[in-house]
Parts: sequence; C-alpha cells; structure tokens
Amino acid sequence: MRFMVILRVLGVLAAIISVFMLWPLGWTLVDGSSDMLPFFKSIAVGLSVSVTLLLISRKAKIRDIEVREAFATVTLSWVVASIIGGLPYLFNGTVPTFTDAFFEAMSGFTTTGASVLTDIQSNPRGILFWRDLTHWLGGMGIIVLSLAVLPFLGVGGMQLYKAEVPGPVPEKLTPRIQQTALLLWGVYVFLSALEVAFLWVGGMNFFESLTHTFGTMATGGFSPLNGSIGQYKNPYFDWVITVFMFLAGANFALHYMMLRGNLKAWWKDEEFRFYTILTFLAIVTATSFLYISGTYGSLLKSLRYAAFQVVSIVTTTGYVTADYEKWPFYVQYMLLFLMFVGGCAGSTGGGIKNLRIMLLLRHVRNELKRLLHPSAVLHVRTGGQVVERDVLGSITAFFILYITLFAIAALVMSALGVDVLTSIASVAATIGNIGPGLGTVGPAENYAHIPLLGKWVLSFCMLLGRLEIYTVMILFMPEAWKK
Amino acid sequence: MRFMVILRVLGVLAAIISVFMLWPLGWTLVDGSSDMLPFFKSIAVGLSVSVTLLLISRKAKIRDIEVREAFATVTLSWVVASIIGGLPYLFNGTVPTFTDAFFEAMSGFTTTGASVLTDIQSNPRGILFWRDLTHWLGGMGIIVLSLAVLPFLGVGGMQLYKAEVPGPVPEKLTPRIQQTALLLWGVYVFLSALEVAFLWVGGMNFFESLTHTFGTMATGGFSPLNGSIGQYKNPYFDWVITVFMFLAGANFALHYMMLRGNLKAWWKDEEFRFYTILTFLAIVTATSFLYISGTYGSLLKSLRYAAFQVVSIVTTTGYVTADYEKWPFYVQYMLLFLMFVGGCAGSTGGGIKNLRIMLLLRHVRNELKRLLHPSAVLHVRTGGQVVERDVLGSITAFFILYITLFAIAALVMSALGVDVLTSIASVAATIGNIGPGLGTVGPAENYAHIPLLGKWVLSFCMLLGRLEIYTVMILFMPEAWKK
Repeated sequence: MRFMVILRVLGVLAAIISVFMLWPLGWTLVDGSSDMLPFFKSIAVGLSVSVTLLLISRKAKIRDIEVREAFATVTLSWVVASIIGGLPYLFNGTVPTFTDAFFEAMSGFTTTGASVLTDIQSNPRGILFWRDLTHWLGGMGIIVLSLAVLPFLGVGGMQLYKAEVPGPVPEKLTPRIQQTALLLWGVYVFLSALEVAFLWVGGMNFFESLTHTFGTMATGGFSPLNGSIGQYKNPYFDWVITVFMFLAGANFALHYMMLRGNLKAWWKDEEFRFYTILTFLAIVTATSFLYISGTYGSLLKSLRYAAFQVVSIVTTTGYVTADYEKWPFYVQYMLLFLMFVGGCAGSTGGGIKNLRIMLLLRHVRNELKRLLHPSAVLHVRTGGQVVERDVLGSITAFFILYITLFAIAALVMSALGVDVLTSIASVAATIGNIGPGLGTVGPAENYAHIPLLGKWVLSFCMLLGRLEIYTVMILFMPEAWKK
Repeated sequence: MRFMVILRVLGVLAAIISVFMLWPLGWTLVDGSSDMLPFFKSIAVGLSVSVTLLLISRKAKIRDIEVREAFATVTLSWVVASIIGGLPYLFNGTVPTFTDAFFEAMSGFTTTGASVLTDIQSNPRGILFWRDLTHWLGGMGIIVLSLAVLPFLGVGGMQLYKAEVPGPVPEKLTPRIQQTALLLWGVYVFLSALEVAFLWVGGMNFFESLTHTFGTMATGGFSPLNGSIGQYKNPYFDWVITVFMFLAGANFALHYMMLRGNLKAWWKDEEFRFYTILTFLAIVTATSFLYISGTYGSLLKSLRYAAFQVVSIVTTTGYVTADYEKWPFYVQYMLLFLMFVGGCAGSTGGGIKNLRIMLLLRHVRNELKRLLHPSAVLHVRTGGQVVERDVLGSITAFFILYITLFAIAALVMSALGVDVLTSIASVAATIGNIGPGLGTVGPAENYAHIPLLGKWVLSFCMLLGRLEIYTVMILFMPEAWKK
C-alpha cells in the first residue's frame, strides 16, 4: 500500500470539491447572504488541505495503482469529500456539531438525503444549493468525474473506476476509461438540463428547478423546502420528478444508447424490464390500497401520490409528497421492502440493485431444479449470456454481506437506545441511500434526534451503500494491509 | 408422480397420529374431563381417514420412492397431521374455527409454539397434553419416527428422510436409515426422560414436567400455563430448562457421540463452537443491558432472565419468563436477530441454522479475499474438509430464499392490515419456528387476533421453516409435476 499515491489523489479531490464550492459562493454573492464568509472559509480550508496533500505526495506516481490502493483511495476520497463538504454547514452555524456537518455532507455525496436539519428553509440559498450540489457530484461519482476531467489519472483509472461505479459488472462504453467517464457525465448533464427546463417551464423558480434536479438525477432527495416536493400543490411537478427519478434509477449506459438512436435499448435490457415491471406492480398495488382505504378521495390522486412515493423509494431518491407513515400498513411495509431492492446497475441509485436480485432469483430457481435433477448442469444467464460462477459467487456474497451488515448496524442502533422499528428503518434507509425511513426517522421527521454515535454508524452505512460494500469492507481485511 | 404411493404413506401417518392421541385420551379418562369425547371422536375420524387412504392405495408399492414423490409425501404428511391433530381443539370448543385448530396443530407439530389460545389454563389436561405432544412428535420428525418404527418404509426411506431432516448435509449415523432414525429417537427419548426427572425432582408436578419437557426438547414452546415458565418463581426450573433448550438446539448426532463416550465430540464440532460462542455473547450483552438499565435489581437475576430468553429464542423454543417487550430496545432487536440464526443442523431447532451462517460468512470472507487476489483459488472449509461448490450454491440459495420468502410473507401480512413491526416479527417468529414475536404477537400476547387469512399465511411459514423451505417450495416448480 503506497500511502503517498493515495494522498496525491486525495489532494486532487480536495481541490475539486473546493472549486465546486465557488458555485454556491456565487449564490451568496448574488444574495449578499450570511453564508458568504462560511463559503470563503471552507474554500480556503479545502484548498489548503489540497495543497498540503499534494506537496507531501509530490514524488508519488499515480500511474500504476494497485487494486487495494484503489479501494483505499476511493473510500478515503468520500470521507475527505464529506469532511470538507461539511465545513460550510459548520461555519454557517447550520448544524451544531462536526458530527452533524459530516452526516449531512456524507448524506449529500452518497445521495442518501437523510437530513439533520430541522428547519431547512431558514438557511440561506448558498447552503441549500451546496446540499443539492453534493448530491449531484456524488450521484455519478466524484472519482468518475475526476477521471473525466483529469486525463493524468487515466492509466491507473480503471481500478479507481471499478472501485466506485455501481453494479456487479462494470459497464465500459468505450475501451478508454476517460471517455467512458466523459460520456456518462455527458448523459447525466443532458438529462439534468432537460429536467431543469421541464420544471422551469412549469413555473418552478430557477433556483428550485436546479436544486430539485440535482436531487432527482442523483437519486438524492435533499430539497430546499421543508415540505419537500409535497410543498408544491401543482401535480405537474410531481409527475415530472417521478419520470426523471425513474430515469435516474435506470442504467445510464442504456440512456446513452437511446440518445444515440438505439430506441430499443431500454426494453431489450432484462434488468430494465425487471425494474419497470416491479415498479409498475408496486404502483398499482399502492394506488389500490390508498384508494380503497379512502386515504385519497380520487383514483387519480391516489395514483399520483403512490407513483411518486414508490418511484422515489425504489430509485432510492427519498423525495416525499406525503407522510406515508399515515398510509395503510401495506404501503409502508412495501416501501421498506423496496428500499432493499433499489435502482439498476449503472444508475445513480443505491440498494441491492435489480440486476443482482434478478440473478439471485435465477440462482434459487436453478437450485430448486437441481434438487429434482441432481446431475443437471444449470447456468444462470442474463441477456442470453452465461453468468460465470465466480461472478455469481460474488453476487451471492454481496447479498449476504448486505443483509448481515444491515442486521448488525441495526443492532448497534438499538444498543444506542433507538426503538426496534426505527433501528431497522434508519439503517435500511441509509445503507440503501434512500433518506427517509419509518418510525422516528419517517418522512415527516429527520435524523437530528439520533444519538451522536448513531449518526456515525449511519454515515458509515451511507458510505457502505454508495460504494457497494466491497470497496469499503475490503479495508477491514488484514490481507489488504500486508506488504 | 405416483399419487397412490403418497396416499399410502399418508394413510400410515394418519394411523400413527391417531394412535398417539390415545395418550391424551388417557389423561381425560383419569380426570374424567370434558375432552374425553372430543378425543374419541378425533381418533375415530383419524383412523377412518387412515383406513380409507390405505384402501384406496392398497396396490401401491412404497419401496422405490422418487425424489419428487418424497418431497410431496413429506409436505403433505405435515398438512394431514395438522388437520387430524387439530380436531381435538375443534371438537372440544377450545378454538372457534377450523383455521384456528389447524394453526394451533401446525404450530405444535412444527415446534413453533405460536398459540391462538387466550386462556390456556381454562383447558382440560387432555388438550394441554396433546398440544405439547404434537411438539414432541414433530421435533424429531414424524417421518423419522415412522422410519424408526415401520421397517417396511425402509428402502425408499432415505429420500423421505432427506426431505424431512434439517441441515444442509443430512447426517447418517449408520448406513441403514432405519437404524439412524432409531438412534436419533433413542437419544431424544433419553434426554427427555432426563429433563422430566430434573424438573420432577425440583418439585414440578409430573404433568407439567412432562409437557414442559416435550416443549423443551422439541424446541417447541407450548406451556400448559398462561404465564409460560415465568409462572414459576423457582429459578431452578429456569436453569434446568435453559440447559435442556440449549441441548435441544444442538446437533443430536453429537449428543449420540457424547453418550457413546466420545467426550470431545461437542467441542470438536465447529458448528457447536460457533453456536456456543454466539449464545454466550448474546447472553453477556443482554445481561449487561438488563442490569445497567435497571430492569432487574441484581446481576444474577439479570443473568437468569437474559440466559433463559436468549437460549429460548436462539434455539427457536419460544418459552418466556418475562415480557421482553418491556426490556431495552437492544435486547428486543437482538432477539429478533437471533430468530433468523436458529439452532444447529441436526437439532430440533429451526431458523437458518448456525452451520449455514458459518459457511456463508466464510464464503463472504473468500469473496473479499478474491478481490485482492483475483487468481487465488479459495475454498470454503468445515471440519478441515472442503465444502463442494454445489453444496455451497445450495446453501447460498437457501439463505436468499429464506430472506425472500420472509420479506414476501411479511408483505402479505401487512396487506391484511397488520402493522409493520408485527408483520415482520410474526413472520420471523413462524418461519423460524419460534412462536412469540414482537409488536402485537409479543410474549405477553398471542396470535388469536391475527386475521383469518393471516393465520393461513403464518401456518404456511411454519411448514416452510420446519421442512427447511426446499421440500415445500419444490412443489411450486412446474418441473415437479411433469411426467
């Protein structure tokens, strides 16, 4: 493990984060608001950290990064980003402690959207903009962004890319990793611009159009409004955001193919079909329960709220238009269930991911068949291709690890005095990068009251979820540190 | 699928169940109680069913049972046993509906111990005895019992045995399946006699010593007392039952070896060590939380209650000495967590089983290692032996199926109007064959208020759990029914 290589990448990253703070700083200058100085301070600290790291590591060569160095680099990048990214909250007095600042920033970058703010709208626009910008940066990946804009990372970049990009089989659109990163960010920027336009045309002001787009396309969930999307009475906004959340939860490589004119790309993809059908079924049943229980008077209104909330949760966005804890138990439990499913591989969404679930279910079907025909040779396939046993082994281990870490983290939360349902839901909502859960961290509440240590546990869960567990957990293996 | 062969085994089974009803009938004759006639009626119905089935299938040869026939036979055996076994409750008016009778009997045979009775002690001793006898018969397995006492099942017996006996790798103590069945039942009877003696010597009356022993050794959990074991004030009973529950949750093949003089058998077994250490850690932390929270004044009292409840849940027995829903959240959540772990392979306990969990964790560790060394060839081992990839694939599929069916069954419960925590806990407590859960099915409550359809769902979960899922689920594969 060459620590100097790691420090060098972290130095670059600290600079990128600091530079991006110029954007919220712009808003503070326009508004002349109180968070101007906090942003100046944060940028100064961020750049100092960057320069220091780059000076210390000036002799390191990034070119040939080893696997374990890549894991350590990516994990630490997200930690450093969250430390620097939390400074504005701390300096502005938005949050009372460093823990809260770190939690809010980690929640932003990992696109979780769990918040410790009790009165969001009391904050100036610079702070509110930064919250959603962290979503947007983290959504497609801060390392992927670095790869796209900094060609010198290119050669060792594949290892970094693999350590950050979601999905059991990392998709390479082009042989060159820098180009892949650029294309993905291109699609991301394009779809974001499209959503801003749709919201703006519908009458949302530009600031809110932009921040809500960041929250949507990154499947994040931070809103500059106390009442999230539910604060708007116009169903047009609900539907626009529902559609873009759904797109953000799908594989961006498919969107790229669609934009290139391959109009069958979506439906030809097995995972996309699985994701669409699952979402459709969830919306239909949720709508039925909302309508029959009389929660909403009309079928159309039931559909609007059900569709928004189902898509928001399954894509792991976490925007809310209603307090779903007042909905029928079925819908509440189903939302908890969908938190584990999550988005598609290659999307900005979290969770276990549809592709994995699909392959795991095929594995189960094969094992049942093998009980009837013990000598049969059965393969798990996707898209007509056999999934190699090693890949399948890795996916089963991922599932086991996800469930195990979820169960243990919830155990720790309960040990800190959090009730059983909230322990379960808070961990499900953070490891899955959703945001709102059930119990005392439901859609009408926030994470401010969670014990200090609990906020660190949940921050760790967010990181685990965003980096798909392996990248982080590998660092807990003694083998990763041996010479 | 030769239905006549299945009917023939079911006919034999119906006779066995009916004959065992003579035992509670004996108590009714001694007491001259009101349940005498219900038992006469039940036996008459049971024997009529038996004779009818045997007549219909008189030409069938049991000798060469196919794999799929074995799965169907074993699954249906448990259903038929529960139908006949529920008759006394129905005829005596102990329960209001056939659903409740079936639920209580299925809960008995599968050693779950979830009850729909609101005032247990208002029932005569025949009924109470029968409830615990169903535990004892189901604990070691009704098919295994048939194999032990009916040599003519012997040749096709191995398939039946494999379909009923818990554990990923069915243990054969001897090459002959009838002898293995006999030895296991021998150990079971011996340990049961020992527990009866211990309880009786301590001052418990004979009836309660016997019924509580049945509930303990089968890891069942039915008690003839409203307050379960908590009704006794004598800590001696708590400790005796704690020890025997622990033994019942371990592999009976190990007990057999111990009794044969191999005194290192327990500790040499990796699963037994895992089970012991896990239980120990759970007891230590639970004791600490109970003591520090001031739930119990003294450390010894905290230990007594913690040890009893931890062992009761991890072995999937379900006896209670306190309302643990009033305990610190940590202990409540931990008990929910342990419901999934369950006992050891080859025990009478349910759940996922320690052996599987141990091997799954090793699989995860290997996959993490393989990320660092992609070309390394890593095997999962137990007891020094390599676990074959096919066996490991079957275990990962089991885990996925267990979690998936749990999640789906809880979804159905919530759709029936049961709150989220109770939906989760009721399914965890039935698919794991525990009994009491959390929420409205906690240790101080019962399952009487669960909606009718919910009782069927939970009965199905009990069956799934007891037959370790595959045996039942295979019947939902179209391939199982093809010619």
